[in-house]
Amino acid sequence: MSKLRLKIAMSLDGFVAGPEQSVQNPLGIGGMRVHEWVFPLKAWRSEMGMQGGETNESSAVVEELNANLGATIMGRNMFGGHPGPWDAAKPWTGWWGANPPYHHPVFVLTHHPREPLVLEGGNTFTFVTDGIESALEQARRAAGGKDVSLAGGAKAAQQYLAAGLVDEMHVHLAPVLLGEGERLFEGVADLHGLTLVRTVATPKVTHLKFARP
Amino acid sequence: MSKLRLKIAMSLDGFVAGPEQSVQNPLGIGGMRVHEWVFPLKAWRSEMGMQGGETNESSAVVEELNANLGATIMGRNMFGGHPGPWDAAKPWTGWWGANPPYHHPVFVLTHHPREPLVLEGGNTFTFVTDGIESALEQARRAAGGKDVSLAGGAKAAQQYLAAGLVDEMHVHLAPVLLGEGERLFEGVADLHGLTLVRTVATPKVTHLKFARP
Repeated sequence: MSKLRLKIAMSLDGFVAGPEQSVQNPLGIGGMRVHEWVFPLKAWRSEMGMQGGETNESSAVVEELNANLGATIMGRNMFGGHPGPWDAAKPWTGWWGANPPYHHPVFVLTHHPREPLVLEGGNTFTFVTDGIESALEQARRAAGGKDVSLAGGAKAAQQYLAAGLVDEMHVHLAPVLLGEGERLFEGVADLHGLTLVRTVATPKVTHLKFARP
Repeated sequence: MSKLRLKIAMSLDGFVAGPEQSVQNPLGIGGMRVHEWVFPLKAWRSEMGMQGGETNESSAVVEELNANLGATIMGRNMFGGHPGPWDAAKPWTGWWGANPPYHHPVFVLTHHPREPLVLEGGNTFTFVTDGIESALEQARRAAGGKDVSLAGGAKAAQQYLAAGLVDEMHVHLAPVLLGEGERLFEGVADLHGLTLVRTVATPKVTHLKFARP
């Protein structure tokens, strides 16, 4: 069966975003520091449709994480837009512009029903209001045998982790402190058998891969 | 000048000890899981006066951390004993028995004055009531040019980190979740220039070494 693979970046003190998250600053104060390792990478830049970039020890990790994916699940905050019901007159279409970097079906966990959003490049956003298991079932069906990426944010990760539904967890540990913000493992005390199976160490980030042996 | 070197083990979700710490269970519920990587090591067993044990990627890290140390600083909880003033009639002498594994002067941060405790094997415990800077000054003087180890626990680590007095920080990151307990970086949001300079990865623990470049 296709795996559910969580990938998420976290600070040394356990935060995926800093305090005072908003539409203007979705990563919160200082939250960008958790992601700084990824921006110079050619593997990331090409995913985002940009030229150039460098290749280092993190490149193979990013490439592996992007390979064999047939669908993505994300929380409402990661899709973005103002909290509250969708504005039908001027609907938010995500952070990514006309052609997001997913190129496969994306399922957004939300409490607010909305018609699917079809963008360029195979990016179709489906809004799932009946819970994480329904989203996973829909994503697996859409993935056509490939794996499903759980792209975050923290609340979505926590729900799937707590339910024991994550098959692989990739934590990109940034060697920085945020001090406050949104914690990845808030309320999660059990990895449900997920075990550290590989570490890729670089000066800017430590890639920790967890799976069931 | 001799360096102040913090070494401490932490769970993936940032805890150095689990909940409900007590004299009977100083690491709290589940806290032992953060230290499981160290017990099989020959390098640790020989430090504790035990025979046998294994050698793996963590051995060199443990040996490096134990080398060139002239004094140790620890918090009151790490020295142990009941909270509150020392019982002069039956004073607590630490967890370690007659011959603790330090073999050099140890400075215990506490609010309760007490005469120094002289045990076998060069282990002298001095109780410092006038703050972390005084303890560091005394430890540096006692270390005779060697480095000073900051052995924990969390509160002692937090005070020295917040004051920018730590020259090297070794975090032994255990790939487990505790869910609750005592957080290493509670209230600490600034590493004062400490930067990740080396990672040693093993299946049971990730050794992260921070220093000033």
